[in-house]
Amino acid sequence: MIIVITGNGKGKTTSSIGQIVRALGHNQKVCLVQLFKGENFYGEQKILNKLEGLDFFSFAKKHPFCFKEITKEQVIKECSDALQKLNKIAENNKYDLIVLEEFNIALRDGYIQEDSLINIIKELNKNTNVMITGRGASDKLVELADLVSEVKEIKHPYNKGIPAQEGIEY
Amino acid sequence: MIIVITGNGKGKTTSSIGQIVRALGHNQKVCLVQLFKGENFYGEQKILNKLEGLDFFSFAKKHPFCFKEITKEQVIKECSDALQKLNKIAENNKYDLIVLEEFNIALRDGYIQEDSLINIIKELNKNTNVMITGRGASDKLVELADLVSEVKEIKHPYNKGIPAQEGIEY
Repeated sequence: MIIVITGNGKGKTTSSIGQIVRALGHNQKVCLVQLFKGENFYGEQKILNKLEGLDFFSFAKKHPFCFKEITKEQVIKECSDALQKLNKIAENNKYDLIVLEEFNIALRDGYIQEDSLINIIKELNKNTNVMITGRGASDKLVELADLVSEVKEIKHPYNKGIPAQEGIEY
Repeated sequence: MIIVITGNGKGKTTSSIGQIVRALGHNQKVCLVQLFKGENFYGEQKILNKLEGLDFFSFAKKHPFCFKEITKEQVIKECSDALQKLNKIAENNKYDLIVLEEFNIALRDGYIQEDSLINIIKELNKNTNVMITGRGASDKLVELADLVSEVKEIKHPYNKGIPAQEGIEY
């Protein structure tokens, strides 16, 4: 099953973390490929690293939008490394669930070619579930997916100038 | 902070599970009060039971919509037990995050009185984050909340007659 979690609201990454925990609870083999997430910052990373049955890879830890010293070329290179990794993962064919965190952002910003990602997803074993997260999912990916949820922001404290809070946003 | 995760799409419970994992990663103390979730069914329950720093309570495990042998009176009694528990939790005041799983459903279906729940939430320590999940959040709760996300169903395989899948829906 191909699952897309998109939208501008809070709850996409936490939803994918919960999905990983759910799958692990059924003794499934899970792989998380994370983009644009700084290391040792998000609380979940510490717990995920301890859970048995999960392989956790992280690429392009800094997005140029937040880190001005990072060039577009660096991000494209790291996202290309992530795709190569994903290609190997597809060949090895040992996972029940593969989570591609913030890959929608990488597509939207042109760091990953849509066709390259879609070709890899199509080559995966039909019993492998794939979850792709991030705002701004592409029309093609939404069409390809079996399950799509849009997390809409109704209210968020940062609109009142309240900064991101430990344990909530990271 | 009061957080409401509502909407008809897939991703609300997994989002709350991810939120719990995130908070635990920062060594926060977390409490999960779950309604309408059968025991030993959802994969996440097995993992959550092993995580340090989390207290996990479950009430009204069967919703009459799915289990016809359950009476409305039984559910009201069990939801009242859940509220009593929550009252004690509020008094003890030791949690950084309290997750109230499917409490929106209990409000919507009249198993919990809105004012009773809102009064308890208002009595909580201001540093305690509360997350309430379930479709059909009430207007009053949305108004009270600092952060509200609506998870909208764009596409779901059960609309094609495909049954719920282990590791995905449970």
